[in-house]
Order: sequence, then C-alpha cells, then structure tokens
Amino acid sequence: GYATLDLQREARTGFPEVIYGEGKTSEQIFGIFNKLMEHHDKVLATRVSMDKANYVLEKLHIKYPNQTFYYHEAASTLHWINSTFQEKWKKGYIAVVCAGTSDLPVAEEAAITAELMGNKVERIYDIGVAGIHRLLNKARLIEDANVVIVVAGMEGALASVVGGLVSKPVIAVPTSVGYGASMNGIAALLAMLSSCASGVSVVNIDNGFGAGYFAATLTNT
Amino acid sequence: GYATLDLQREARTGFPEVIYGEGKTSEQIFGIFNKLMEHHDKVLATRVSMDKANYVLEKLHIKYPNQTFYYHEAASTLHWINSTFQEKWKKGYIAVVCAGTSDLPVAEEAAITAELMGNKVERIYDIGVAGIHRLLNKARLIEDANVVIVVAGMEGALASVVGGLVSKPVIAVPTSVGYGASMNGIAALLAMLSSCASGVSVVNIDNGFGAGYFAATLTNT
Amino acid sequence: GYATLDLQREARTGFPEVIYGEGKTSEQIFGIFNKLMEHHDKVLATRVSMDKANYVLEKLHIKYPNQTFYYHEAASTLHWINSTFQEKWKKGYIAVVCAGTSDLPVAEEAAITAELMGNKVERIYDIGVAGIHRLLNKARLIEDANVVIVVAGMEGALASVVGGLVSKPVIAVPTSVGYGASMNGIAALLAMLSSCASGVSVVNIDNGFGAGYFAATLTNT
Amino acid sequence: GYATLDLQREARTGFPEVIYGEGKTSEQIFGIFNKLMEHHDKVLATRVSMDKANYVLEKLHIKYPNQTFYYHEAASTLHWINSTFQEKWKKGYIAVVCAGTSDLPVAEEAAITAELMGNKVERIYDIGVAGIHRLLNKARLIEDANVVIVVAGMEGALASVVGGLVSKPVIAVPTSVGYGASMNGIAALLAMLSSCASGVSVVNIDNGFGAGYFAATLTNT
Amino acid sequence: GYATLDLQREARTGFPEVIYGEGKTSEQIFGIFNKLMEHHDKVLATRVSMDKANYVLEKLHIKYPNQTFYYHEAASTLHWINSTFQEKWKKGYIAVVCAGTSDLPVAEEAAITAELMGNKVERIYDIGVAGIHRLLNKARLIEDANVVIVVAGMEGALASVVGGLVSKPVIAVPTSVGYGASMNGIAALLAMLSSCASGVSVVNIDNGFGAGYFAATLTNT
Amino acid sequence: GYATLDLQREARTGFPEVIYGEGKTSEQIFGIFNKLMEHHDKVLATRVSMDKANYVLEKLHIKYPNQTFYYHEAASTLHWINSTFQEKWKKGYIAVVCAGTSDLPVAEEAAITAELMGNKVERIYDIGVAGIHRLLNKARLIEDANVVIVVAGMEGALASVVGGLVSKPVIAVPTSVGYGASMNGIAALLAMLSSCASGVSVVNIDNGFGAGYFAATLTNT
Amino acid sequence: GYATLDLQREARTGFPEVIYGEGKTSEQIFGIFNKLMEHHDKVLATRVSMDKANYVLEKLHIKYPNQTFYYHEAASTLHWINSTFQEKWKKGYIAVVCAGTSDLPVAEEAAITAELMGNKVERIYDIGVAGIHRLLNKARLIEDANVVIVVAGMEGALASVVGGLVSKPVIAVPTSVGYGASMNGIAALLAMLSSCASGVSVVNIDNGFGAGYFAATLTNT
Amino acid sequence: GYATLDLQREARTGFPEVIYGEGKTSEQIFGIFNKLMEHHDKVLATRVSMDKANYVLEKLHIKYPNQTFYYHEAASTLHWINSTFQEKWKKGYIAVVCAGTSDLPVAEEAAITAELMGNKVERIYDIGVAGIHRLLNKARLIEDANVVIVVAGMEGALASVVGGLVSKPVIAVPTSVGYGASMNGIAALLAMLSSCASGVSVVNIDNGFGAGYFAATLTNT
Ligand SMILES: Nc1ncnc2c1ncn2[C@@H]1O[C@H](COP(=O)(O)O)[C@@H](O)[C@H]1O
Ligand SMILES: Nc1ncnc2c1ncn2[C@@H]1O[C@H](COP(=O)(O)O)[C@@H](O)[C@H]1O
Ligand SMILES: Nc1ncnc2c1ncn2[C@@H]1O[C@H](COP(=O)(O)O)[C@@H](O)[C@H]1O
Ligand SMILES: Nc1ncnc2c1ncn2[C@@H]1O[C@H](COP(=O)(O)O)[C@@H](O)[C@H]1O
Ligand SMILES: [Mg+2]
Ligand SMILES: [Mg+2]
Ligand SMILES: [Mg+2]
Ligand SMILES: [Mg+2]
Ligand SMILES: [Mg+2]
Ligand SMILES: [Mg+2]
Ligand SMILES: [Mg+2]
Ligand SMILES: [Mg+2]
Repeated sequence: GYATLDLQREARTGFPEVIYGEGKTSEQIFGIFNKLMEHHDKVLATRVSMDKANYVLEKLHIKYPNQTFYYHEAASTLHWINSTFQEKWKKGYIAVVCAGTSDLPVAEEAAITAELMGNKVERIYDIGVAGIHRLLNKARLIEDANVVIVVAGMEGALASVVGGLVSKPVIAVPTSVGYGASMNGIAALLAMLSSCASGVSVVNIDNGFGAGYFAATLTNT
Repeated sequence: GYATLDLQREARTGFPEVIYGEGKTSEQIFGIFNKLMEHHDKVLATRVSMDKANYVLEKLHIKYPNQTFYYHEAASTLHWINSTFQEKWKKGYIAVVCAGTSDLPVAEEAAITAELMGNKVERIYDIGVAGIHRLLNKARLIEDANVVIVVAGMEGALASVVGGLVSKPVIAVPTSVGYGASMNGIAALLAMLSSCASGVSVVNIDNGFGAGYFAATLTNT
Repeated sequence: GYATLDLQREARTGFPEVIYGEGKTSEQIFGIFNKLMEHHDKVLATRVSMDKANYVLEKLHIKYPNQTFYYHEAASTLHWINSTFQEKWKKGYIAVVCAGTSDLPVAEEAAITAELMGNKVERIYDIGVAGIHRLLNKARLIEDANVVIVVAGMEGALASVVGGLVSKPVIAVPTSVGYGASMNGIAALLAMLSSCASGVSVVNIDNGFGAGYFAATLTNT
Repeated sequence: GYATLDLQREARTGFPEVIYGEGKTSEQIFGIFNKLMEHHDKVLATRVSMDKANYVLEKLHIKYPNQTFYYHEAASTLHWINSTFQEKWKKGYIAVVCAGTSDLPVAEEAAITAELMGNKVERIYDIGVAGIHRLLNKARLIEDANVVIVVAGMEGALASVVGGLVSKPVIAVPTSVGYGASMNGIAALLAMLSSCASGVSVVNIDNGFGAGYFAATLTNT
Repeated sequence: GYATLDLQREARTGFPEVIYGEGKTSEQIFGIFNKLMEHHDKVLATRVSMDKANYVLEKLHIKYPNQTFYYHEAASTLHWINSTFQEKWKKGYIAVVCAGTSDLPVAEEAAITAELMGNKVERIYDIGVAGIHRLLNKARLIEDANVVIVVAGMEGALASVVGGLVSKPVIAVPTSVGYGASMNGIAALLAMLSSCASGVSVVNIDNGFGAGYFAATLTNT
Repeated sequence: GYATLDLQREARTGFPEVIYGEGKTSEQIFGIFNKLMEHHDKVLATRVSMDKANYVLEKLHIKYPNQTFYYHEAASTLHWINSTFQEKWKKGYIAVVCAGTSDLPVAEEAAITAELMGNKVERIYDIGVAGIHRLLNKARLIEDANVVIVVAGMEGALASVVGGLVSKPVIAVPTSVGYGASMNGIAALLAMLSSCASGVSVVNIDNGFGAGYFAATLTNT
Repeated sequence: GYATLDLQREARTGFPEVIYGEGKTSEQIFGIFNKLMEHHDKVLATRVSMDKANYVLEKLHIKYPNQTFYYHEAASTLHWINSTFQEKWKKGYIAVVCAGTSDLPVAEEAAITAELMGNKVERIYDIGVAGIHRLLNKARLIEDANVVIVVAGMEGALASVVGGLVSKPVIAVPTSVGYGASMNGIAALLAMLSSCASGVSVVNIDNGFGAGYFAATLTNT
Repeated sequence: GYATLDLQREARTGFPEVIYGEGKTSEQIFGIFNKLMEHHDKVLATRVSMDKANYVLEKLHIKYPNQTFYYHEAASTLHWINSTFQEKWKKGYIAVVCAGTSDLPVAEEAAITAELMGNKVERIYDIGVAGIHRLLNKARLIEDANVVIVVAGMEGALASVVGGLVSKPVIAVPTSVGYGASMNGIAALLAMLSSCASGVSVVNIDNGFGAGYFAATLTNT
C-alpha cells in the first residue's frame, strides 16, 4: 500500500505519527488520518491546503459524526482530539514570539502544535527588533516561560536579542517572509544558526510544527 | 577599549559571557579572561588554538598561582572554575552521541561545556548509521538521558534515526567532517534541518559549545 | 526537423531511446513516439503531463487500434510494449524502497521503468527512518534483491541506513519532497552523496527513471 | 605599464584613487603610491600585509625622508598626508560601532578611512546584541553622530537594532567573523540586506574602507 | 492581536512605521493603515497588490471621505498624507537613475518614498551602460543632487560607473530584471557590493523603498 | 519618459538597440519598437510573449500597413526589416547545433538573430552526446561553418565534444532544460565554462539571442 | 573509547569497515587498523596522508613483522591482505576510465579498492572528450567490462559520452580538478547527475573509493 | 601510462594539445612536454608554478640545449616554439584590456597565448570603470582590433561598457580579484554573463588562456 504506519511511534517518542500533508492526495490524507484515529487519541496533519481539508473533513464528519475536527486556515493544520482523552503530558508554559504580522501563519502552527501536546501557550506577536522597546516591554512575560519559540523572517535578528535577554532555551524558527537577499528564509536561517547569543537552537524554515513539537518534548524532560 | 564586557549576562541568562577565541589575539583573550575572573566563578573560552592557549595559560598561572585552569586539546577549550565554587544549576543527565571518530573534537566541546554548566554527561561515540546495530544497542542508555546531543558529519543521518527512537529532545550538531558534496558540513546541516523525525533542533556546524549550552538550559527549565 | 532519432541506441546500450516529455509539445512527443514504434518493440516516454498524454494517446489509438498503451498518472510515464514482444533481458529482482508516501510518484517511475526492462520489482513503501523498525522488519526482503533502489526526500537518511544493512548495490534517489532547507531535494542529494555507508551511488533528484534504468543494466551485467 | 592612474579622480569624486593592495606586488604598490604622492596630498593603500608594508615603507622613507607614513597593523592600511595639507572637507561626526572584539580590524579600517577624509570618529566597540543593554547605554552617543557605521559578523543583528533606534543613516558592514553557517560573512551580509529596519544600507563583507568612504561622502553632501 | 504597532518609531527615527504589504491579508493591511492614521500624518504601505489595494482603498474611502489616498500601480505603493500636514524634513534633491525601462517599478518605489519624505526627486531613466553616452550626457544633472539612487538589474554595472563619476553618495539598488545567471538579482547585488568605485552602498534586491528611505535620512543629516 | 533610446548604437556597434521584452508592458514595447523603426531599417524584440506580441502586432499593422512583421512563437522574437533594406554585413555561414528537441526554442532565437544580421544559418538539431554518432555524421558540415553555436541543457557536454572536433570558434549556450541538479541551467553553464576543450566561450543560460549576435560580430571581424 | 568498531559489517555487507583517515590522528588510525586486523583478513584505510602513513606503517611493521602492508602515494590508501587469505568474491572485470592525467589519484583510489575486493581492473587513462577519438578507440575494451567507472573533473562530459556508448552500468566520479566555475568538482558533479545518457549513477566528488566499492558490489550481484 | 596524448588535435583544431599544469607532477609535465615536442612545433603549458617550472626547464635544457623555452612568472606559462617554425595562422590584431593592476596575471596569460598563436597583441591595462575616461581615451585603439579581450575582477563592469562601445566581438574574462561578495570571481562571472551589452561572450574565471585561444580562432575564421 501507499503507507506503512508507524503505530509504535507514540510508545517510543511520546506522540503519534504526524501527517505531512504536502505531496499527498486528499484521499491519502483521509486514509492515513482515519487509520491513525483507530490507534491514537490525537491526530495531527500539517500543511493541509484548504481544498484538501474540505475533502478530508467531509469524509471524516460522515464517518465520525460525534467527533470534533479542527482546521486552522492560517496555520493549515487539521487535527482531532478524542473527546474522551485525558492529557498525560506534564503541562508546560511556552511563549511563542514573532517578529511581524506576516510571520503569523508559522507562529500559529507552532502554537497549535504545542497546545495539542498539552501545553499552555502565550502568543506575543509583532515585536520585531526594528522597535526594540516592544520586546523589552515583554521581557518578563517571556522569561517566565519554560521555553521560548521565536519566529522571524527577513534577517531573523529577534532570535539573538531574545536569546541574550532570557535564561530559558530559545527555539528559533526562520520564516520565508522577505524578498531578494532574504532568499525565502535562508538569510534568517543562516543568521539564527550564527547567533551570537548562546542557548539558541534552530528548526527548518517555516517549520512551526517542529518548533512546537520540540518545545513540548522539553517541557516533558 | 577593545572590549565592553557584559557583566550582567550571568544574572540575565544564568551563565557568564563565554569568550570566542577565533579572531582575537592572545593578549585580548588573556585580558578578557582575567577581567571575567574578577566577576564570576567560571570562565570558558572556546576555539583557542594550542599556541594562544600556551600564552594565556602562562600569564594566568603567574597571576593566579593557586587556581587550576583546564585546556582540552581536541576540543580547543580553555576554562576555569573557582575552587570555592558551589554548583547552583539543577543537575541533568545529558547523552552526547557521535557518528564517527572524526567527530570527536566537536563532541568533546559539547561534553565539556555541559559538564562545566553542572551536568552529568554520558559519552557514546562512533555509532553512526552505517552500522545501525551499534546505535540500537545503546538506545536504552540514550532514552534515559534528559536531553540528547547528536554530533555527526557527512550526511548527518544519525540525528534522524535517534530522533525517531527516543522521546527526549534531540539537539543535532552537524560537523564539517567529510569532503566534496559534504561541503564542509552544509550537507549534514541541511539534512538535520530537514529531518523527518520530529523533536530535533539544530545548532551551527561544529558548534559543540552551542549544543552543550542549549542542553544545559533545558535541564534547568 | 526537430528530432534526429538515435535508432542505433538499442543495439549499443540495450534499450531504445527514451522520450523526455518536458519541454516538448504534444505533437513532438507523438511524432517521436510514433517513429520509435516503427523501429523498436518498446517505447517509453517520461514526464508526460496528463494533458499531453491525452493528446498523444488519442492519436496513437487512432493509428494503432490493436496496440495497448499505458499511462501512469502518479509516475507521469507513457509506454508501449509490442504485443508480439519476447523479453531478451536477464530477469533480475529489484527492490524499490521509499521513505514516505509523498515519495510515491518517484518510486513508481523507478518501478515502472525497471519492469518495462524485464525485471521483477518488489515495492516496499513508506518505511522512513523516523520509525526504523519498519525498515528492520523488511531487511530480509531487501537483502534478497539483486539491486536496491532507495527513494527519499527531506534528509534522505534512508539510503545510508539501507546501505549499511545489506550487501547489495544501493541506488539512491533523492526527491524534492520537503521545504525550506530541503531546498527542493538538494539536502537529500548532498546527504546521499556524502553517505557514510559504502556501496551507495546516486542519481538526480526525482530521477526515478534513471534509477530504474541503472538497476536494470546491473541485473544484465 | 602595469598601471594607468586615474589622476582626475579627486577632481571628480573628491578623493584621490585608493590603492587596493591585494594581488599587487610590493614593487607595484610602491610604484603607484609614489606616483600618487606626486599629484595629491593624501594617499591611502588598503589590504597591505605587514610584509609588503615593510618593503614599501622602507623605500618611501628613503625617497621622502621628511614625510610621515602610517601603517596600521590591525587594519592593514598604509597612508600618508602631506605635512603641508589643509583639510577642505566639511568636518562630520561619525560613530563606528562594532559587535565584538573580533570585528575590530574591519572597524579600524573604517575609522581610519573616515578620519583620513577629515572626519571626527567615535569608536564604540564590542556592544553586540547578546547583551543589548550595552547598546542601549550608548544610544544617545550614536544618535548624536551624522552617520553611523555598524560593523558585525556572525548574524549581523546589530545593524537592525541600531537602525531601529536612531534617525541617522546606518551603513552596515558585515564581517567574516564566525564559522559554519556564517559562511565567511554571507550570513551577516544577507541579514543586513534583509533588515526589517529602514534606513540601513550595506557594503561588502569586511569592507571597512568602503563604509568609511561612503560615510565621508555623506557628511560632505 | 496580530499587530503590535511601534507608535514611537517616528519620534525615534523620524518617520512612522511603514507597512510591508506582502504576506498580510487585505483586512490586516486596512487595520494597520487605519490605526497608523490615528497617530501620524503620513502612512505608507509597500508591496500592496492591485487586488489588496482595491479592498483597502474602498474601506478607507468610506471611513475617511475627506482624505486623499494614492495608489501607484507600477510601484505597488499605497500612501496617505494628511491634508493639514506641513513638511518638517529638510528638503533635499535626490536623483533616481535607472538602467532600463524594465527597472521602472523599483525606481518608482524609490522616487515615491523619497518624495513622501519631503524631497525633490529627479527621475533619470533608461541610461544603462550599454550606451554610456546617455549617462555622460546626464552627469551634471546627477552631480548636482545631494544623493544619487542607481537602480539596475542584469549585471548592475551602472552603479560602478556613476560611482566613479560623481562626488555624491551613491545608493545602489539591484533589481531582479534579467534571467539565467542574473539569478533574480543576485548577479547585480554581488556586482554592486563588489564595486571598484568607492562611495557606493547597497540595499536589498528590488528594495526601492529602502533606497528612497535611506536617501531621505541622508538629506536630513 | 520611460525610455532613453540609444539611437547611436548602430553607428557604434553595427546593430540598433534590441528590445528586451520581459518586464515591459505591451504599450512600452510598442512605443519603443515604433520609435526605433523611425531611425533604423531593422528592429528586433526578444522574449515577447504571445499575448504581448498580438497587441504590438495589431498596433504596428495599423500604423505601418505596408510593412511585414515577423513573430516566431517558439523563439518568442518579434522583428521587422524594412522592405527597402540592402544588407551591409559581410555574409557568414553559421552552424546552430542543439542537443535535444527541448532546446529548440533557444536554438531558434539564435538562428533568427544571426539571420536577421545577414548570415546564412545551418540548423543541426537534436544530436546530443548520448548518441555521439549523430554528431560525428555532421562533423564536416559543422567544420565548414565560420562559427558554431552549440545549444544544450542538462549537462551541456555537447559543447566540449564539438569544441574538440572543429577548428572554428564555438559559442556555447546552456539551456534551462532539465530538472533537479540541472538547476535551471546552472549545471550546463558551469560545465561549459569548465570545458576541457579550448576555443569555447559561453553566453547566459537560454541566451540564444546573445549567441546569435556574438556569432554575427565574428563573421564581421 | 574513541571508536566503536562495527565488526559485523563484513557479515552484513560483504566487506569489513573501511577507515576514513581524514580527521583522525595517526594514533587513532593505527589503533583501529590493528583492531580490524584481529577480526578480518583485509583492512583498508583511505585518505591517509604520507605523514600519517609513515607513523602507522612503522608501528604495524613492528607488531606484524611477517605481514605486508601497501601504501599508495597518489591514491593515499593504506591496506593489508592476510597472506593466508583466499578470495571469496566473484571475480569481475572493471574498467576504470579517466579523462585527464590530473584525475589519476582518484582513478587509482577506485582501482585499488576494486582490486582489493577481488576484481580484475583495466586502467584506461587520459581519454577525455576534447579528443573523442581516444575514447572511440577504446570503446570495445570498455564494453567488455562488467562495470565501468568514469573519473572526470572540469565539466565531466566523459561520463555522458561513455554512458551513451556502452550497455554496461557506468559509475561516474566527479573530481575536483579544475578552477573557477568548476567549483572544486561541483560543476562535474551536477553535470554527471544531469547526464542525458541513461544508466549513469554518481558518487561523491573525488570518491574513488566509493566508486570502486560500488562496482565491486555489482559484480557480486 | 598516465597520459594518452591527442596528437591529431592540431590537425583537427589548428593547435596542439595544451598542458594543464595543475594537479600534475613535475615529472608528468616534463614527460608530456617532451612528447609533444616530438610531434609539434609549439608547446604550451599553463598554470605551472615556479617550482615545477624550474624542474621542467632544467630537464628540457639538458635534453634540447639548442632550443629556447619561455617561462612567464606572472602568467605561470611555459612555452616553446621551434626555431625553425614558420607561422601558418592568419595574423590578427587582438586588444587585451584589463580593469586593474591586480588583474595583470590573467591578462598576461591571455596575451601570451594569443601571441603564441600568431597574433599581434595590444596590451591596455588598468582602465577600469571607476575612472571611465581612461577607457574612453582608448576607445579608438580598441575598436581597431579584430577582437577584444576584457579582463576584470570585482564587479566586472568593464566588459559591459566596452561591449557597448565597440562593434568588435568582446571576450570577457572574470578574475578572482576581490573579496567577500566577489566570491572568488563568481560576482564578475555572473555579471559578465548577464551583460546588458550584446556581443559579449564569457570564459571561465581567471581563464586568460581560454580567452586568448578563442580570440585566436576568431581571427582565423
Ligand atoms: N518594501 C519593504 N522592504 C523592506 N522592509 C519594509 C518594506 N516595507 C516595510 N518594511 C519594514 O517592514 C517592517 C514591517 O514588518 P511587519 O510588522 O510585518 O509589518 C517595518 O519595520 C517596515 O519598516
Ligand atoms: N574515502 C572515503 N569516502 C567516504 N567514506 C569513507 C571513506 N573511507 C571510509 N569511509 C567510510 O567512513 C566511515 C568511517 O567513519 P569513522 O567512524 O569516522 O571512521 C565508514 O563507514 C567507512 O565505510
Ligand atoms: N510540517 C512538517 N514539517 C516537517 N516534518 C513533518 C511535518 N509534518 C509531519 N512531519 C513528519 O513527516 C513524516 C511523515 O512522512 P510521510 O510518511 O510522507 O507522511 C513524519 O515523520 C512526521 O513526523
Ligand atoms: N579595500 C578596498 N575594497 C574595495 N575597493 C578598494 C579597496 N581599496 C581600494 N579599492 C578600490 O579598488 C580600485 C583599485 O583597483 P586597482 O587598479 O587594481 O588598484 C580603486 O578604484 C579603489 O578605489
Ligand atoms: Mg509589524
Ligand atoms: Mg567509526
Ligand atoms: Mg509515512
Ligand atoms: Mg564581546
Ligand atoms: Mg533601454
Ligand atoms: Mg533527442
Ligand atoms: Mg590529457
Ligand atoms: Mg588601478
């Protein structure tokens, strides 16, 4: 068949396999989503376009009329939590910070993933370094988190500045916001990897999901 | 002067400023090291060549005859802990895994940094994916850690495999080991950022220090 | 004219010229396909979009009402085998392994090519390294093949792991599955070229055809 | 001959031709320096290694025993001002800010160039964003300048933060300080070009000379 | 909310926050534009597509029936100046030079930005180096400006030639005009950064806004 | 205005300014075409899409009912020769060779340009190195030309092989035909620049026009 | 310890672990070599510089006075075969073809590896495409092999031409021979991956070892 | 053996095989040089370091005491012309233009090659675009040549300006002169390929030899 599901992943890594929606047909997404529902209490699919989501949701609603499914348009995520589910993860407090309004979709993907994995998320949006005082005003709120996710495009400088301000681990997410020398996020990616602040680690460009997931494993350490 | 030390960094981020040895003269390294010793109980300098280390150590020994200084040749780190110092950080258990013998210098930089920040480190070296059973034999030992650092050059596949095996956060360090298409670590860097395993975040090429530091902030969360 | 067919290619290399569908008009594809049918018993065209395929198939059906033509939508291949044809190649057994469901189109292009060249193909799909046990379960099946094709996007780690597990030649096909640092397949390509496992060779990104063809020449050695 | 001096450059652009020392022999540098002295009151050569400088200085001292020549080791610049010279440029006040001690050679090249062109320079060194308060403490001093030069390697975030703090034009100079993903200054270069702060323009990696020169033309506008 | 406006930016840097239209919804652009109008006398949004502009303009016209809004189709800019506004900036004279007709959109973005910030702009278009006499004919007009903006795609040579002709600061804007080795503006960008003429600084590819803004800060020095 | 025509170009370089159609509006192309017709006997516009060509042709036909205009769809060129025109260039014989049918549009752009400049062109298409005998069969025909243009995508090997076979200058044109590691023509471009055959020079990716033009200047030497 | 030897590799993949000499100290190479000798009948170390080889050979000779060790200077390989050893691999006939004399070290690394693995190797050197007749003269000799290894730098065109001439699998090895646009082998690598000939697969730049190894697995299929 | 000389090359292409000195041992260079002398009247070796040249010259002088050999230190070329030789090529007049003194070695390699192939060469050095009048002063001298070679590093703008000034074919040679964004000649290479002037073709970075050779074939057309 087209899929060999990794049904032991939750046992090994603490969370079931997540569906990567890009490059899959609507039928394949539905098929895998459905199969995962039979073995887990939570299912998450990322990078699901509106069109595919409509198709999948329709078939899911028919098959599971008593369950609720969530599609977030900005974040392009589709997920389900079993109504009977009791959270087992240790609740952490995660700050999701982003530099500009244009970074919002990636920040939301991170926030939704972290919440789905049982964490409390504080969204602190549009506080990029061009107006550093916006960040300094929020420094306390950020320091209070267990982990900080910093989402930024263009030059991605926000990650370094936050990294130098707080004692908590900072997970940097470069975004593809920008043009020309931003090179679809490469500038921010290289900048974040080269950060002069210690305690910053990085995930892939636009990978809000990866940052949210990594943050959740941290709070569970 | 040539330096404006950030003496409040420990108060803000939990650890004093760390000296980046490359591009500094021996005299500058000594000057900054000496100054930091006056305000802190630990001082770390990274990327200090043997030549520079010899110069700096000589001047430090003369000035502080009763203190011990450590230079690690493979890792190129130079550090000092005040004999009177009592560890304040929460002790964590960190696994440092590397793919091949050639990755050892970077792995050691990570291990030394994590230890200096008060953690217990388990070194698990030379278990790259070309012989996957070497890794599977150590899976338990790795899962028991609070955080896992994976150091690998060439294609850097070890990070993905470890990421899929354990529930703990994995910090991947690409190394510049390899040639040709390895592009001085770019291949491993891109691969680690593109990992199909969730829960993997990445630091700069050969940045063992950054991985060790980040891991330490995690165990302190 | 627009084409100078290489009608001696089969005599030299064992297989007739294959049509590269991209950048050709439907009319050109039909013209070349038709011409090749006059000199050979098999014709293969790759990278033929649905639209072009429809046009070409219609004209072929009119001209050759008694022949069967095959179009594979996922793989975008169009081919024909003369009903009167007797296979001359030595039959080999080729394993086509892929990492994720999203890699399926490339894997199918490889499988169809290898089959058309007279081989038996075993499809082993969606066993990427994020769940390594899926691969270990299939290790025997893979070792039994004469040649192994490994198709993977993102970080492409599957090629190294398979390469370290079996004694058979491994042909790695990076795919453009992934985003950001995957750089449309460059990450997987560089990783596969830098593999720490010996006995791995690589073809172009998304070049399922090339892998299938190369594997077929191997079984004919 | 090996050189066609542009003796009208001062008339056109306000400053005589500057000698680019790299890729020239000591003999050629001396020859051009000597020739330019015959037509101008100031001569500057950049990127002159210690070895070449020694050779050139020796020959210059013999030929012009009554003149003073300046070689700056960190900046690798060699220059001469005629003792009889009266400054014609409008005096400006230029702040040269750098992120770390390792950026000093580039910052000095900028400062020396700007001074040679008749400006007053304030050096504000080692105030990178990992300790943002060092910068905030100097904000006033920086705002008071006519033009600000920001020199930074690694991720180059300092340029954006300064750009967002002051109303004066900011000229950003990326340096090759860093390793791995810093890519010899490419990371800082792309970041500075992608700055979310307005009013930032950029010169080549390690091009302190270009920044100092450009700043001087500004103060002359 | 989705935006944290930096309302002090005008006080700090001399001009209010500018809206980056890409990656924002029409609703978000309207919301931010509207908010900024409440605190400032000028509002500028860049990279606003025709579609988004129509939506935003409609809502602005309803809300502010007595105000005039300007949308420039080629430059994709949308702006507003309060009818009651009195210019406070020192008027400068800025020459905007471009190499070819295809560079016009970027040149216009620069010109509009500089005008909005209170400057007089001279547009000198389509005088690229393939016909150098077109440029030499305008040399006087260009030298008379306080600052020169040079907009060029393909190989971007115009910046170097202008830089060598005049004594005024030259701000180079590479454009994405060209194909193949032009690499969407990278060729021009690298060329401008590597200019053999002194006194040239560079902004991002297609960043007419940034050049106009930077030039305006210069005339205000 | 939007254009500063270089009406002396023909006097200087032997051929009037050629219109680059990309990034210009239909109206601009018409305007410039019209203007050039007033001063020259030939006008050429390249990279003119079908849509723009229709608009321009309609307006030209109305204005010049007695003149003939040529639009080549594959090559996307639009040109005009005055019916009263007498060729002044020395007639040369130029061979245009291409590797595959997919390279035809670029080869045609070269051929049309060379013909318009007064040369006799021999088209030798689809003789790529995968079937080297096709090329060897044509070696004589190629050697007889004054200049050879070689158009090839993918790995561009044809240029080296032709370069090693003939004594005539070879102008290599890399095309964007291919995928993955072909990188839109970069692979062929780098390969042609690195050719082990002497006597090969290179123009931009897909730049059939440039090759045709350059070849024409050669025959006029 | 610094090494975790994979002693089962021979059982799994048919050949013992090979030592990668770069980035290892002489002491480490000796240690691993020695250990591998205790478990296998053949040991191979690649990328061993002359200096390291001298150190290792001296210690090996002392420890194993009755054994013979081979160091190849051009190829930088060091190996040992037990005098008591009987070859178990199926003997294949492998042609190693190279384009120029400068590619010899890489070709030798391939040839030595293939021989060590029990194959007969025919060396056909310096027959690059600039003089295609050299290759055509050897076509028969090449076709007779079971597998062909093509080693070429610069534009790497030889791989495509050989691929189009023979029916046997072609393993292409790009080398770092060349300068400028050759980009240390990247041009040849991309070209070989983009080959218009079918049946070509590629290994890393300068990876003669990998090609020899892969070829040996083929003859064992 | 290590070399398969292409002794028919002169018959086919008009000039004997040229020795590429890099990556060859002194012994190999001598061996090939010697062999070529037996079949030709001219031998050229490029990229021969001083050390290798001394070795080769010594052995050549011993073997051929009555012949003259020329080594050019700046150009790193070594050549020989038989004293009995009569030039057969049509004499052309070639202008070699370079931008700066640092480009001299590459310009000399071009000039020597063109002279060796029977042409008259005019050297016009150090007339880069930063002082455009230097070029305009030489325009006539350049236009009078049959072919123009333009050698330039940094941004390589000189090629475009010359291309727009003259009617003769322009061969552009990018050099690796520059730093940072010059990227070892990549900036100049891309710029020259993207030239807005028609009639410019390009050879590899620092490939003076290739330009000289190509120019010579042109004058022989
Ligand atoms: N065309 C443009 N190019 C670069 N930066 C811009 C442009 N337009 C606006 N900006 C800046 O982008 C930032 C807006 O970020 P955001 O919060 O996403 O709106 C502000 O600091 C602006 O000054
Ligand atoms: N020249 C080479 N190129 C690529 N891989 C190699 C080479 N020589 C040895 N290897 C592989 O590199 C790995 C050794 O890694 P290490 O543990 O660092 O010695 C082994 O899996 C070898 O098969
Ligand atoms: N947005 C995402 N970014 C990166 N990886 C993802 C994302 N969503 C899911 N994944 C991972 O992608 C893999 C799915 O591959 P596939 O078998 O093609 O579905 C799983 O291992 C997921 O954990
Ligand atoms: N450090 C530098 N960086 C960039 N350009 C420079 C530098 N020093 C001198 N130049 C310029 O380089 C050109 C010198 O080229 P050349 O003829 O080779 O000496 C002059 O136009 C100088 O203005
Ligand atoms: Mg904002
Ligand atoms: Mg090992
Ligand atoms: Mg899957
Ligand atoms: Mg510092
Ligand atoms: Mg124009
Ligand atoms: Mg064809
Ligand atoms: Mg040779
Ligand atoms: Mg000069």
